[in-house]
Amino acid sequence: MASKEAEFITGDLVLEDELILQVGGVYAPAQGDRVIDGTAHIVIPGLINGHTHLPMTLLRNCADDMDLFTWLNDHIWPREEKHTPETILWGSYLGLLELIQSGVTTFSDMYFMQEQTIAAVLQSGIGAHIGATIMGNEGETRKRLPMLRELHASWQGAQGGRIRIDVAPHAIYTCDAQTLRIAAELTEEFDTAMHIHVSETAKEQDDALGAHGMTPLAYLDSLGVLQVPVYAAHGVFFTPGDINLCRDKKVSVIHNPSSNLKLGNGCAPIHELQQSGVSVGLGTDGASSNNNLNMMEEMHLTSLIHKGWLADPRLLNAYQVLAMATREGARALFRDDIGTLEPGKRADIVMVSTESPHMTPLLNPVAALVYSAQSSDISRVFSSGRAVYESGDFTTLDKEKICAEAESCARALQ
Amino acid sequence: MASKEAEFITGDLVLEDELILQVGGVYAPAQGDRVIDGTAHIVIPGLINGHTHLPMTLLRNCADDMDLFTWLNDHIWPREEKHTPETILWGSYLGLLELIQSGVTTFSDMYFMQEQTIAAVLQSGIGAHIGATIMGNEGETRKRLPMLRELHASWQGAQGGRIRIDVAPHAIYTCDAQTLRIAAELTEEFDTAMHIHVSETAKEQDDALGAHGMTPLAYLDSLGVLQVPVYAAHGVFFTPGDINLCRDKKVSVIHNPSSNLKLGNGCAPIHELQQSGVSVGLGTDGASSNNNLNMMEEMHLTSLIHKGWLADPRLLNAYQVLAMATREGARALFRDDIGTLEPGKRADIVMVSTESPHMTPLLNPVAALVYSAQSSDISRVFSSGRAVYESGDFTTLDKEKICAEAESCARALQ
Repeated sequence: MASKEAEFITGDLVLEDELILQVGGVYAPAQGDRVIDGTAHIVIPGLINGHTHLPMTLLRNCADDMDLFTWLNDHIWPREEKHTPETILWGSYLGLLELIQSGVTTFSDMYFMQEQTIAAVLQSGIGAHIGATIMGNEGETRKRLPMLRELHASWQGAQGGRIRIDVAPHAIYTCDAQTLRIAAELTEEFDTAMHIHVSETAKEQDDALGAHGMTPLAYLDSLGVLQVPVYAAHGVFFTPGDINLCRDKKVSVIHNPSSNLKLGNGCAPIHELQQSGVSVGLGTDGASSNNNLNMMEEMHLTSLIHKGWLADPRLLNAYQVLAMATREGARALFRDDIGTLEPGKRADIVMVSTESPHMTPLLNPVAALVYSAQSSDISRVFSSGRAVYESGDFTTLDKEKICAEAESCARALQ
Repeated sequence: MASKEAEFITGDLVLEDELILQVGGVYAPAQGDRVIDGTAHIVIPGLINGHTHLPMTLLRNCADDMDLFTWLNDHIWPREEKHTPETILWGSYLGLLELIQSGVTTFSDMYFMQEQTIAAVLQSGIGAHIGATIMGNEGETRKRLPMLRELHASWQGAQGGRIRIDVAPHAIYTCDAQTLRIAAELTEEFDTAMHIHVSETAKEQDDALGAHGMTPLAYLDSLGVLQVPVYAAHGVFFTPGDINLCRDKKVSVIHNPSSNLKLGNGCAPIHELQQSGVSVGLGTDGASSNNNLNMMEEMHLTSLIHKGWLADPRLLNAYQVLAMATREGARALFRDDIGTLEPGKRADIVMVSTESPHMTPLLNPVAALVYSAQSSDISRVFSSGRAVYESGDFTTLDKEKICAEAESCARALQ
């Protein structure tokens, strides 16, 4: 699919084991093949949610409509201190239900007590980049290194390559310079990528200019951090210089429109980044600043807000936005095995029903997906060829039990 | 419900005939009463969609991501010229399916061949303000007056007061001064309200300043039009002077966030209007510039974009936004019989299921409705006490037939 025009393919889609074998044309099923009728469906690659904090589902709607620091200091952080392995586990399960239901088959998470999240991901059957999260000063970071190395050694490449351990220093304002350097070294050692918040708020931007005389991204560059593959969440306040840095250092960006708007941060310069050739994926951020993990909504929002912000209805067209959630989202996470429907790619597949009033008439399937569809139109989700969601039923997770346990864990955090 | 805090009521909701009889407390059902279990549901008033062009559902996704005048001249208007009573009828039915499915029980429409839309509305069982649409010069308008008077005489107050005929001059750039004056006289004659597009685009604003030395709203005022009850769709480019005019002349505003963003117009000064005490409702606009008629999405979008636009996460909180789709939406249409759950109001009721991952945990029902819910969470819709939607089924409309006929009508317009 090019950025301006979709490559529509009709015909059969054939999966074998974990991979896509054939796209288009006619396939004669062999004995034992499972055949699914795709009539009245649009079939797209599994969506990629490039920035989440999965267990924050338990903090959904606990505090809204307030300034950022009241929200963090008085509501989010005090509750997060009460987390236990059990709350992390059920919060992760809850998030996985939402991800799957909105068509996500790969996501990148940054939180703590990651083994609990990994256990939930393994059960779910979808893929994840799990952040080896780092915060604090050099001493604290060096103490944590054995634990981070163990996380990587235990889980990198698990579940047939569906689990990846990325290095996730939280942000420049929560990690000292030496910690950021160590994080870059660890990224090289792990041969993975770095996931970090950059230029999310005006305060972060202003503080960096005050303390370092540089933007947050330029500061990371000055520390040598951008020598490793980096994907930056947010980038709301990126300057033209930052955009050039992204281009030159191959930094990719994860755009989180709901969260950026809801917290009053604004609208990231996504059109400018794309014009410079930077890979931009989409993310939901955590459920406490969103307040859901619905990638169909993030696509819709992305397709609308930049047109309004820059007063140009031609920007971020439906094809580009669908690509941000699929092909470009994969590129942004430095992945070449997911994000498109092509032979040899991982069989991450989403079937979207077109049998609803809001998908009628079906004059342009890509515009319908981005502007009209809702996540409830998703009828089936396959991850590495395995059905994880079929006609409203989760095949790998127990929805009723998870919702009940998550509700009770959320009450315990209040 | 106050603008800053919700009044949560638990207990029974009792309907009698077309009205709400009791809210809260315990009701002992009499023989023959129909009892519906509201466990795991949030119950809200029927939503009010203050600005639609219903038959434009047939133009959904026919043309997107282009500049406004290419879109209108090359795509929308040529197709609209092909409309027949049949296409208007099926396009209206299709729109009604979407409205009902997203919880709408009253909407205000502006289009042509209105008898077809009225026929569909009567069948659907929900309420509508139908615009007596006016465009052109004085001569054309005077010729059309008998037809408009007949529309009013035939349908005003039909279906137990559910149908209202408002006067709908399209805009200042499609109606000459004398036509706008006639429209105001007709509004007085009908004793209804006027529905008009105002300050939707930068071009409209600039042209008015050039031609009249005044903003579009000030121009309407100079013609005496604001002496009648007026609800203005859009108001994207309203100046502080326009906001004062709205306040002083009791002009209300219908905010259409999806359409305003998608067409590259921008973001209306809703916070400023509300601060001035102006009633602001919500609308979807037509499906060709949206591209759906989903009021749950409009609420969600409204809750997000103003925070981002004005860099303040405290603005347009969840309570205010829910009110815009209910109580304030009713006020904006000059209605006092709908928009709240109170004894004596029309029994327009929406039941929203909370049994989904994205509605878990349920820490704040209003935030959950605005930030987390999807229209697929709506399980039942009652209009004037009559169930029009129950657990995925339309009780008054034939979804399969309508979708098939609408698809075929849409193809005929291509």
